[in-house]
Amino acid sequence: MLAQQFQVNTNNVTVNGDESISTYQYHTQHVETTADGKVVIVPECKEYQFKTNNKVPRTGVMIVGLGGNNGTTLTAGVLANKLKLQWESKRGPETANYYGSLTQCATTYLGDDLNGKQVVAPFNALLPMVNPNDLVIGGWDISKANLYDATVRARVHEPTMYHQIEEQLKAIHPLPAVFDLSFVAPNQETRADNVLKGTKREVLDQVREQIRNFKKENNLEQVIILWSANTERYCEVTPGVHDTAANLLKAIDEGHPEISPSIIYAVASVLEGVPYINGSPQNTFVKGFIELAVQHHVPIMGDDFKTGQTKFKTVISDFLISSGLKLTAVASYNHLGNNDGLNLSFESCFRSKQISKASVIDDMVRLNPILYQEGEHPDHIVVIKYVPSVGDSKRALDEYDSDIFCGGKNIISVHNTCEDSLLAAPLMLDLVVLMELFTRVQIKSDGMKDFDSMHQVYSVLSFLLKAPQVPPGTPVINSLFQQRACLENILRACRGLQPLNHMHLEYKLPQ
Amino acid sequence: MLAQQFQVNTNNVTVNGDESISTYQYHTQHVETTADGKVVIVPECKEYQFKTNNKVPRTGVMIVGLGGNNGTTLTAGVLANKLKLQWESKRGPETANYYGSLTQCATTYLGDDLNGKQVVAPFNALLPMVNPNDLVIGGWDISKANLYDATVRARVHEPTMYHQIEEQLKAIHPLPAVFDLSFVAPNQETRADNVLKGTKREVLDQVREQIRNFKKENNLEQVIILWSANTERYCEVTPGVHDTAANLLKAIDEGHPEISPSIIYAVASVLEGVPYINGSPQNTFVKGFIELAVQHHVPIMGDDFKTGQTKFKTVISDFLISSGLKLTAVASYNHLGNNDGLNLSFESCFRSKQISKASVIDDMVRLNPILYQEGEHPDHIVVIKYVPSVGDSKRALDEYDSDIFCGGKNIISVHNTCEDSLLAAPLMLDLVVLMELFTRVQIKSDGMKDFDSMHQVYSVLSFLLKAPQVPPGTPVINSLFQQRACLENILRACRGLQPLNHMHLEYKLPQ
Amino acid sequence: MLAQQFQVNTNNVTVNGDESISTYQYHTQHVETTADGKVVIVPECKEYQFKTNNKVPRTGVMIVGLGGNNGTTLTAGVLANKLKLQWESKRGPETANYYGSLTQCATTYLGDDLNGKQVVAPFNALLPMVNPNDLVIGGWDISKANLYDATVRARVHEPTMYHQIEEQLKAIHPLPAVFDLSFVAPNQETRADNVLKGTKREVLDQVREQIRNFKKENNLEQVIILWSANTERYCEVTPGVHDTAANLLKAIDEGHPEISPSIIYAVASVLEGVPYINGSPQNTFVKGFIELAVQHHVPIMGDDFKTGQTKFKTVISDFLISSGLKLTAVASYNHLGNNDGLNLSFESCFRSKQISKASVIDDMVRLNPILYQEGEHPDHIVVIKYVPSVGDSKRALDEYDSDIFCGGKNIISVHNTCEDSLLAAPLMLDLVVLMELFTRVQIKSDGMKDFDSMHQVYSVLSFLLKAPQVPPGTPVINSLFQQRACLENILRACRGLQPLNHMHLEYKLPQ
Amino acid sequence: MLAQQFQVNTNNVTVNGDESISTYQYHTQHVETTADGKVVIVPECKEYQFKTNNKVPRTGVMIVGLGGNNGTTLTAGVLANKLKLQWESKRGPETANYYGSLTQCATTYLGDDLNGKQVVAPFNALLPMVNPNDLVIGGWDISKANLYDATVRARVHEPTMYHQIEEQLKAIHPLPAVFDLSFVAPNQETRADNVLKGTKREVLDQVREQIRNFKKENNLEQVIILWSANTERYCEVTPGVHDTAANLLKAIDEGHPEISPSIIYAVASVLEGVPYINGSPQNTFVKGFIELAVQHHVPIMGDDFKTGQTKFKTVISDFLISSGLKLTAVASYNHLGNNDGLNLSFESCFRSKQISKASVIDDMVRLNPILYQEGEHPDHIVVIKYVPSVGDSKRALDEYDSDIFCGGKNIISVHNTCEDSLLAAPLMLDLVVLMELFTRVQIKSDGMKDFDSMHQVYSVLSFLLKAPQVPPGTPVINSLFQQRACLENILRACRGLQPLNHMHLEYKLPQ
Repeated sequence: MLAQQFQVNTNNVTVNGDESISTYQYHTQHVETTADGKVVIVPECKEYQFKTNNKVPRTGVMIVGLGGNNGTTLTAGVLANKLKLQWESKRGPETANYYGSLTQCATTYLGDDLNGKQVVAPFNALLPMVNPNDLVIGGWDISKANLYDATVRARVHEPTMYHQIEEQLKAIHPLPAVFDLSFVAPNQETRADNVLKGTKREVLDQVREQIRNFKKENNLEQVIILWSANTERYCEVTPGVHDTAANLLKAIDEGHPEISPSIIYAVASVLEGVPYINGSPQNTFVKGFIELAVQHHVPIMGDDFKTGQTKFKTVISDFLISSGLKLTAVASYNHLGNNDGLNLSFESCFRSKQISKASVIDDMVRLNPILYQEGEHPDHIVVIKYVPSVGDSKRALDEYDSDIFCGGKNIISVHNTCEDSLLAAPLMLDLVVLMELFTRVQIKSDGMKDFDSMHQVYSVLSFLLKAPQVPPGTPVINSLFQQRACLENILRACRGLQPLNHMHLEYKLPQ
Repeated sequence: MLAQQFQVNTNNVTVNGDESISTYQYHTQHVETTADGKVVIVPECKEYQFKTNNKVPRTGVMIVGLGGNNGTTLTAGVLANKLKLQWESKRGPETANYYGSLTQCATTYLGDDLNGKQVVAPFNALLPMVNPNDLVIGGWDISKANLYDATVRARVHEPTMYHQIEEQLKAIHPLPAVFDLSFVAPNQETRADNVLKGTKREVLDQVREQIRNFKKENNLEQVIILWSANTERYCEVTPGVHDTAANLLKAIDEGHPEISPSIIYAVASVLEGVPYINGSPQNTFVKGFIELAVQHHVPIMGDDFKTGQTKFKTVISDFLISSGLKLTAVASYNHLGNNDGLNLSFESCFRSKQISKASVIDDMVRLNPILYQEGEHPDHIVVIKYVPSVGDSKRALDEYDSDIFCGGKNIISVHNTCEDSLLAAPLMLDLVVLMELFTRVQIKSDGMKDFDSMHQVYSVLSFLLKAPQVPPGTPVINSLFQQRACLENILRACRGLQPLNHMHLEYKLPQ
Repeated sequence: MLAQQFQVNTNNVTVNGDESISTYQYHTQHVETTADGKVVIVPECKEYQFKTNNKVPRTGVMIVGLGGNNGTTLTAGVLANKLKLQWESKRGPETANYYGSLTQCATTYLGDDLNGKQVVAPFNALLPMVNPNDLVIGGWDISKANLYDATVRARVHEPTMYHQIEEQLKAIHPLPAVFDLSFVAPNQETRADNVLKGTKREVLDQVREQIRNFKKENNLEQVIILWSANTERYCEVTPGVHDTAANLLKAIDEGHPEISPSIIYAVASVLEGVPYINGSPQNTFVKGFIELAVQHHVPIMGDDFKTGQTKFKTVISDFLISSGLKLTAVASYNHLGNNDGLNLSFESCFRSKQISKASVIDDMVRLNPILYQEGEHPDHIVVIKYVPSVGDSKRALDEYDSDIFCGGKNIISVHNTCEDSLLAAPLMLDLVVLMELFTRVQIKSDGMKDFDSMHQVYSVLSFLLKAPQVPPGTPVINSLFQQRACLENILRACRGLQPLNHMHLEYKLPQ
Repeated sequence: MLAQQFQVNTNNVTVNGDESISTYQYHTQHVETTADGKVVIVPECKEYQFKTNNKVPRTGVMIVGLGGNNGTTLTAGVLANKLKLQWESKRGPETANYYGSLTQCATTYLGDDLNGKQVVAPFNALLPMVNPNDLVIGGWDISKANLYDATVRARVHEPTMYHQIEEQLKAIHPLPAVFDLSFVAPNQETRADNVLKGTKREVLDQVREQIRNFKKENNLEQVIILWSANTERYCEVTPGVHDTAANLLKAIDEGHPEISPSIIYAVASVLEGVPYINGSPQNTFVKGFIELAVQHHVPIMGDDFKTGQTKFKTVISDFLISSGLKLTAVASYNHLGNNDGLNLSFESCFRSKQISKASVIDDMVRLNPILYQEGEHPDHIVVIKYVPSVGDSKRALDEYDSDIFCGGKNIISVHNTCEDSLLAAPLMLDLVVLMELFTRVQIKSDGMKDFDSMHQVYSVLSFLLKAPQVPPGTPVINSLFQQRACLENILRACRGLQPLNHMHLEYKLPQ
């Protein structure tokens, strides 16, 4: 059964106007080692409170790279959903949908009804979330093509779909964008006809003004900025430049060459109090930037949308290792022919990508010291190639090798044909929707005297990101199912519900 | 960090000699619908108690099909581990291990230490479990080949390994077995030179005696019986025969033709008070048999070891659907060349297998009514073929097709080369180890006046089975990660630990 | 260099009006065994003459199953080419083409020019062939949908393409068709609203009249009939019914139940002097039918278009075995969701298909008695499944296993995503074009007193067919490259050119 | 039927002692363009004579890289065959064989016998060839490990096999080898404990002496040298160094740094009159070297053994393009874990490999100007990665994308698991066997006054090489089937047999 809405019958939640406060017993544990070497688990139960503002604000999203494949796919897709479009394709009639979106198309288990039937709700019924159809969409692009022309160029949606929204798409013009050829592939220069001029500082100020204008013109209560532009090369992290918030701002003032365009957007975003999401793998979130975000109380999250091969990889690796099989090699090959691929054909941009893709199995390996000795890990290679003729149809070829019982071998080979941007767009929407939601959630633990936002690095969104950022000093979790559980259980906590434990004890009793 | 052992610092567990009792607050919820159609979740917290006997008994396992590929692989593999064997292979030196075993090679997360480092323990440190090296192994086979000859015939282990244990293996002779050609493929007859004679009733009595003898001769405190023989065709479930415990016993007395060999083993097992596991897909667990097991308080579990393709499938399907992608087709092709494949080349045996493999995605689909309308489900086909030349090296070719955002398609194609029996053997050991363990665990919920075993259908072991049996009237869960969470959280509960919630709230606070 | 046309400078060809006669020295050899067991090869050189009528007639094609996926794909595709259509698709602009057609898109090597550059010509420049754009297309279908509606139903071409030819397609109405539910899957009945009525004899007469009318109305000089309808089950070959031409005609008169619809079409075709091609695997070409075709001097050819997996298989198997590798297993799995798949989900229809696909590697195996002992052959399985959601996008998953040097193994796994009808249509056109061409070629060997057609079973077209028919008593060749060489060399012979020997001796001399 | 031996009943062959002379009518044609632009094919028939010395000499092979995986696999494999070894493996009993060898395990079609049965012969029955079992094997390695230790290190053969020939293998010690770290990966240095000392000239002289000694000590009539060592980086071709034979010798005298070890071996080989085969992709065969080989009348051939992925690729590409399908992309990914992989992980060595693999489809593309405009070609990428854990089990993942009829797409994805050295060894033997054979074949065409060897670049062996060398100014053929036809037809010519034309005209006549 699907419950579109639900109430929770609990005394732990109090409602006051738009606000609700949930008082929550959080069960956890820590581990101590005694003097004689014994390991002792110390269970703890701490009280937390979650304060949620249930009023969904009028929200906009500003995409860096609006005219790119992801940007156009998202924009046209949202319009198609809003207008409930239908269109013809080679495969028959199609209807707009949000397939691939956790918030819009996945469900969450609520419990069994009195007949023992399982009841679920849409994921977005857990707490009030913005409807993607209501998002105001804008942003920047280094190419001045309007969104219709950019959609045609992208070769992602069906012509029979986008012809129906030609007028609306033509009306959207990307704002002039920050551009610095030293951070992207030389081949990107030909696209760059819509570029902000001036010193780094002047450019930063212009971006801030663009954000303010977008908010004002569209009468928005909240804006989220989403980097979906080209993967930049890593900026060279430099003491005195990237290490503190103050140095970072000073370096911008001084036009330091290792201040990348993405840092300028991210800083502008924070200074305008607008949450910022990094959908590419480059190291925008240098130490000084995170400090700046914390200082300004502005949430940020990254890096790199977790869409296809990597998402799959975290699932398979988790499955194998958590079954006690010794994964010995992961070889991941990709090719694609869109502009992302073209840019990644440039070695230093690819390097950023490679780094973000490479570490995703590290935590699973580290957490099984039975299979892996200290320092031992599976061979792991990642290759991305530019193959123009496949366009946006990304191909991933993976091989997973494992050692099994007593000398046996297991070889899993996977070929994945996917449309890169059609996987990314719903995930970008999830990031916007959930990022906005969590700006309305405050937390108060035992030791805190007042409610506060969660740490500005919103690691609760790890499910959606390849190389999830975490607050300094905290462990990274790459297991997709654990990431999902984390998100689901925190949303449940806001509603006064205990985490899902999957135990179903009631069905295990003698009858 | 790996903790080989750990203690729990809690007042909720009391220890009394070998017994410990954990008092546990079980959080769950049910769903009600109000008169005006509103869905209300009602959280509940019930107290449960778990009583665990921590003394591991001297345990034996009797395998039906001891001389088959699974049986020999397990037996030789356990010997190799016990003797810490090393051997040469084409790929270099190999060492005995239990890779692929959840209990022996997977870890469980305990908590973070005071430096924020994650601490894990071997899964089998959660509660005292029998060490596979200590199992006494015996059983039945329709072929009288000793275990050495059977190991050579199986072509699974390396000759350089089994030559080292030739003597030990030669000393093991399978007991004469129940055989009824009408339940397996005609091609099995040539193997059948070690068969019990007599009426069904006489055969049942002989099996019971074999069990008693095995226990006595080996001085065992506990025995587990594991069906790992040929997949039988479904017995034709007949009112008056299979519907009640009494009728079932009567039908055996009368020699009814639809009493399959597996039913005879299972009944003998229950009548001897010995837990029974069905590792093949046939319908041994007819209604009358379950009634019998409940009456005699003997735990049972099945059906069909979840090793390769199906395990993978539940992971991939779960991943896709829980990400909001609409899985539209699953095509699963297999071929193998061992005796299992030969037997499955017989249509009616294959039918049993097909049924057990077919339903594994049903619950995931049913629980997402956003993607799937009532009655709608992905196309799903399962094919198994006998290809002698590949031997025990099973090949699985799968395709997963999904509808993605706005008309997009995703095609995942998987080729899996695996050694069938080398995946199965550690899983069989897990079943034995965990089955034995749970016979030492008793439960007492709010409404019960005394401790009792869990329901005799041990659904807590679902993780290990393709078509997990559940107590009558309870939902089947096929999601591998949920099945693992269930098992892990129940074991934690016995130790006084709350379920893992993956929330890591302490790392989400402002710093 | 591409030569669109070429002349041959030779005295061996004489031209007389539209006719040319080539005198040709055919080198071959036979093998004898001497009394003392020695094998002796006896080279022979025989003179052949080929008489070609170079005037291309106005040609029509009548497709049985015109409204099916192949029929509509071909019809709309030819129209698109004729009108030089362009259209938009998701992947960008598309242009009509004949990709996949040997005659239209492949080249043939002519020789090197005086600078040592290789010169090629289009395959269809070898002899005058009908241009597919000039074909008049008609035929039968059990569904009365006009070709536009049928094209929409097929879901093969882009809507943006077929909308441009809506009018032309709507004007094409399939003729009422022969239908006998006992020969196809029961699920086909719902489509059957356009069916000829009457006894088998009456139906035969109506078909003959339809052929005559088609020819007359379209003012055609030649017609080719192409069976592209559902795979029928094998008719049960019966003495006195299918064994002689006379019996076959008598059985039709008597309405014998084992006279299939395809036999009726084929007999009608022959009686009208119209060449007949069987594009499905069923046994239309029973002995009596071949006798009838020979009696009436009407060319026929079949069975089963060789498009995807099987074509690939003959290439891979040929490659492996001719490299000295021992192919040990071929496992071929397919699924598709078009009406062909639906019909093949019926066991007895599938059986026909399976037979045609199964024998394709037999000749290669038999011709390597070093690798394969007498009677030994690779394991070979073929599975076809109906998976509605994939539509016309056929998926083939194949595995090829080989034994290599000294105990090594090679496993090749292939996943092929293809559009079934888009591969078939150009091949159907090739069959029509080449069938028509060879009706204009006559042959005269040493022993013949006058020119005559080749044997009516046109085995020269084997390249295009999965289970190529051959004249009684002659060997079947499945090697794709040998089949292509056969066709190419015979066409060359008609032009007075010796076969390609690939020796390039001139480049191997000392310089 | 298999004929182990055969005679040819012809007057075109005369025998004189060990020599036979075949007089052969070679049919070919060239293409001219007339003044008015017409293309004219001019057939030609030239007389050639082939003189074959039918006495097989006592032959040795010296392998550069004897202790590497290829070298040890070949050596142990030949011993196993010679001794008719049998051994046990995981998969059952194994027997020595030459699977994968064209000369030993492939057949050639002779003709039909009088009953219409096809008769074949082993490929090596076409002309007298050395039996691999009779080869004396020796060579160089930079590691001094004896062949037994090297075989163990290689992890290719089964221990149960090589233990049987431990003594024989231990007796083989590689000669000290030429080593220059600047040409291979730095990681190779650790292996290098068996290295020739001195200037390049001194080293050259030592190698020449080693060759003479090998010949003398083993009483050999013929020696073939085979480079099977690490892929070197390309030497930087320099005017005045690599351009003429004289300069090359001078550069060696002067110790020029761009004289690679492989050039030293090749020059030594030529100066000793010993044929040289280059099994790796580097540019050993610089212009000056080819001149030297021609001057000294010493046959040479290369480059790069065509074993796995590339061989497959030439077959698939040929198949697709010659069927009229437009291949648009080929993505080839490989990984392996042997020392070849380790060396190739060094960028400049990989570059050599990449070049040799990249051009293999160029000729097929160029020869179809219908599908490909001038300058257009498929996207083609080649990636090789080092993944230690897979060892010698090389994995190739390929994707072939094609445009098909009217906008359709075909995607073929291939996963190939293979043992690298087990594919290479039989092919190396073929090269030795055929190279030796062709040194006994002389040719005389119309214009020549006396018999002479073929051009020293033995392009007739192209079938076995990835980037086949050809005499200057002659076209490269990569089509595997054409390469095979070339070889087969030249061998037939030596026996007085016309080329195979696959026409089977006798079966196409009216009956």
